[in-house]
Amino acid sequence: MADEARKLAHGATRIDFQTDPSRYRHWKLSFDGPVATLAMDVDENGGLFEGYLLKLNSYDLGVDIELADALQRLRFEHPEVKVVLMRSAKPRVFCAGANIRMLAGSEHAHKVNFCKFTNETRNGIEDSSEFSGLKTICVANGSTAGGGYELALACDHIMLVDDGSSAVSLPEVPLLAVLPGTGGLTRVVDKRKVRRDHADVFCTIEEGIKGKRAVDWRLVDEIVPLSRLDETVAERAGEFAAASNRGSGKGVTLKPLDRTFRADGVDYSLVAVDIDRDGRVATITLEGPSDLPPADAAGLAAQGSDAWILKLARELDDAILDLRNNAYEIGTFVFKSKGDGAKVAAWDAFLEANAGDWLANEIRQYWKRVLKRVDVTSRTLVTLVEPGSCFTGLLAELVLAADRSYMLSGTFEGDNRPAPTMALTSANFGPYPMSHGLTRLANRFLATPETVSTLEARKGEAMDAKAAEAAGLVTFSLDDIDWADEVRVYLEERASYSPDALTGLEANLRFAGPETMESKIFARLTAWQNWIFQRPNAVGEEGALRRYGTGLRPQYDMRRV
Amino acid sequence: MADEARKLAHGATRIDFQTDPSRYRHWKLSFDGPVATLAMDVDENGGLFEGYLLKLNSYDLGVDIELADALQRLRFEHPEVKVVLMRSAKPRVFCAGANIRMLAGSEHAHKVNFCKFTNETRNGIEDSSEFSGLKTICVANGSTAGGGYELALACDHIMLVDDGSSAVSLPEVPLLAVLPGTGGLTRVVDKRKVRRDHADVFCTIEEGIKGKRAVDWRLVDEIVPLSRLDETVAERAGEFAAASNRGSGKGVTLKPLDRTFRADGVDYSLVAVDIDRDGRVATITLEGPSDLPPADAAGLAAQGSDAWILKLARELDDAILDLRNNAYEIGTFVFKSKGDGAKVAAWDAFLEANAGDWLANEIRQYWKRVLKRVDVTSRTLVTLVEPGSCFTGLLAELVLAADRSYMLSGTFEGDNRPAPTMALTSANFGPYPMSHGLTRLANRFLATPETVSTLEARKGEAMDAKAAEAAGLVTFSLDDIDWADEVRVYLEERASYSPDALTGLEANLRFAGPETMESKIFARLTAWQNWIFQRPNAVGEEGALRRYGTGLRPQYDMRRV
Repeated sequence: MADEARKLAHGATRIDFQTDPSRYRHWKLSFDGPVATLAMDVDENGGLFEGYLLKLNSYDLGVDIELADALQRLRFEHPEVKVVLMRSAKPRVFCAGANIRMLAGSEHAHKVNFCKFTNETRNGIEDSSEFSGLKTICVANGSTAGGGYELALACDHIMLVDDGSSAVSLPEVPLLAVLPGTGGLTRVVDKRKVRRDHADVFCTIEEGIKGKRAVDWRLVDEIVPLSRLDETVAERAGEFAAASNRGSGKGVTLKPLDRTFRADGVDYSLVAVDIDRDGRVATITLEGPSDLPPADAAGLAAQGSDAWILKLARELDDAILDLRNNAYEIGTFVFKSKGDGAKVAAWDAFLEANAGDWLANEIRQYWKRVLKRVDVTSRTLVTLVEPGSCFTGLLAELVLAADRSYMLSGTFEGDNRPAPTMALTSANFGPYPMSHGLTRLANRFLATPETVSTLEARKGEAMDAKAAEAAGLVTFSLDDIDWADEVRVYLEERASYSPDALTGLEANLRFAGPETMESKIFARLTAWQNWIFQRPNAVGEEGALRRYGTGLRPQYDMRRV
Repeated sequence: MADEARKLAHGATRIDFQTDPSRYRHWKLSFDGPVATLAMDVDENGGLFEGYLLKLNSYDLGVDIELADALQRLRFEHPEVKVVLMRSAKPRVFCAGANIRMLAGSEHAHKVNFCKFTNETRNGIEDSSEFSGLKTICVANGSTAGGGYELALACDHIMLVDDGSSAVSLPEVPLLAVLPGTGGLTRVVDKRKVRRDHADVFCTIEEGIKGKRAVDWRLVDEIVPLSRLDETVAERAGEFAAASNRGSGKGVTLKPLDRTFRADGVDYSLVAVDIDRDGRVATITLEGPSDLPPADAAGLAAQGSDAWILKLARELDDAILDLRNNAYEIGTFVFKSKGDGAKVAAWDAFLEANAGDWLANEIRQYWKRVLKRVDVTSRTLVTLVEPGSCFTGLLAELVLAADRSYMLSGTFEGDNRPAPTMALTSANFGPYPMSHGLTRLANRFLATPETVSTLEARKGEAMDAKAAEAAGLVTFSLDDIDWADEVRVYLEERASYSPDALTGLEANLRFAGPETMESKIFARLTAWQNWIFQRPNAVGEEGALRRYGTGLRPQYDMRRV
């Protein structure tokens, strides 16, 4: 099994999640009043890595990074848009799915992280529909296969051209011996609620399903003759736009991030990443707001992407993605913060008071997604609450998201800053649920739901380490004498365990209680896909992924497990 | 990675799931009025396979087969028992968990099936508490590690001896680079609702947690000094017995199954298994009742384990387990039936009318578990509804459990039996839910819940193929001309796909909608564990499972995925 990294193409030295429309190679974004069109037009030669061509609108992580950027800009820069048409700019193919040669030659960790990011992006499409009133319509013309159909599944409405050949399909199992793992299987039965036996038939027919049966089986919402396509698309876009409850305002330009890569980390304006390669630890320090929030929503709009709360989200998001994809050897993320907790609380109160404002809402929804991204990151998460920190409200979510947390009781010798405190705000009781639907506090106190109510009554209280520990908010309160040794020993110990076992452990312990469609995608579906991504039947020398397109038939171990 | 089968010990030629107390090597079952004691006393030399010793009450599948048998007999043969004490007959160790050398040398498929069966058995312990009023108390004396603690977790009440050394632990991650995969991680956070950061600490401490902290962290229910152990156990047993709502009656002896193995199958009295090794298909034919059910509960008790409905459950259960564990190369199970659907319906009505009878209840609960076992079997499930079949009510669940089903429209040429029909009964609307809590009909019609109500109003209606297809109960209705070819081509095509991809596909499509703790164990936890069971960090030459006990430290690939 190949498990070596491919070489990045075009001279790149890292996978970069920052882009902007002027640099897109694969998507064309255009606007017509409340309707935007996101046309997929993948540049065959624009692969992220060397060694494959992105034929037939197949995609790799680079294509998806552009898609994620476009969706993000639609949310922040184009509040006037109510409907996005997801289309192909190529004839006779909407999208052929994830590029097979890319998958076949990628190391396991890249496959897994590629799927994770594409899943997050598709979950984001649904999030924008539910929480921003930004609807998506997929216009599937020609082949809509595998990941192409999975992209369609994330949209609110799927239109399939009825021309006798356009079809939707999930051919992964028969063709490639892997799963439709970017939400496909889950969305088919959980979102579109396709009957399970129909789903079984659909997922084992290479050529897919077209025409009336695609509607009857709930695979698409409507079929449209080519001759009436334009008018029907316009009609449908009009309907969805009319039904949208999207707020209105003037868009906010997402300026390029201030970002400087160092050999041992990254400096953003509000986030610093410091990498200890020997210790396999990245310390991520977040800076609190230097000022109080603006007086009103107009003030927020004026600050735009320079607003502390938006800038911090963007920088943290980029830092997490960068580490996930460019630093597999880092096993632990240590979160720290510095600043004034009272100002963080003021920002929380500002967002709460302005929740009806479109931009404040977008910022909250974005933070929700960033924190969800933290939750599904397969790295040990540790939060250290030290003097000078500001783990209040929104930032306290990083204490609650951690696999464990340490808080200093008292002060450090020779440090005249006061003992750290942390405080909860309204931000901890609703706006930032985890992917399985619970707030981090509800997830934490599943055994004693009344604890959450008790804590809600204590909002705003500055708790020192003893109080936070007694309240169950931090794992350990330590004094100056024990701090350095305990934390060091813990980080060393953690770094000595099998990274795989930790990944499985954390994925199970972080999500107690219910599952949602979204969390099932990361649990039931992704975990099975990752298993299959290890199996010789898929990735071995004679496996289907490796043999695809060679003319040789895959050879399978026919034992069922 | 070793992926060859171990040799069965003691001259065995297959893994046999049938046993009885007279043959137990590892458990001692004793009775004291309403309290039974199930004492674990594993015979080191009694391993199922050659090549390892079952030291320190560690277990393998053979030990668990006896446990499952004992629990089954407690349910059917001992209705007078209200409480089971789960104890160790060895000093200073309750149970050391799954045997590591067994795991290290087992092929992947055995590991996975071993965990599946042990999970089913532990789920059964909880089922008996909830649905039979048979409670279990674990008395953990000494080391209660890994699978030992997972067994404790399945009990209603965990008592830990407070002697300064007895501890509970889940040392899999630090010690073996695998997960506590027999429900451990899930039950810690979902059932016992241990706070996630405490759970993280607990699951990474090799030596485990003892004394007061074990109670404070919700890992056990109480700690008891050794000097007061006997009296406290007796007291607790009395309390649980008094609170039990278990029905009463005279136990029914579970007679040995009539069973004859052939080279190409197995003959039971009501079930026949016919294996087509080249086609990789096992056909499982179930025989309907020859007689109507008895007049009343007393009549059922008189029939005992000869009652059609109990005998069929036991034989089907054994057939499934036998195929799962002894015939990995069989990729598809084809269910057929023969008999009189009206008599099946009469049995359904009998069980419904006598649901308050302890034995009728036990039989229903058992069928529920057998059908759940079918659902989580990693084989393609196909049901063929042909002339002479009796897929009514309870047996129609096998049509609904199938990945797809075919029903003959009309008759076969030269066969004078009438066209097949199928019918629903009350059995399809509640008593046999899937592990994720939905009935198979509710799961099937997630998109249109009203369909379930409509079908409930049609209970008892004999539907022919066209009607059953229109009602959505079967996947395809085929006439005589198409039948043989369509079914053959389908089975051949299915047999040509990667068994691994099918396993992942089916595990995802079968369970739409919600998850429960039980289904999370088979989804989130098991899928991750199966992934880890493939990873070199666990099972490679230098992995932790292989190096355990050799004195050599495991070597890990330190990349996070």
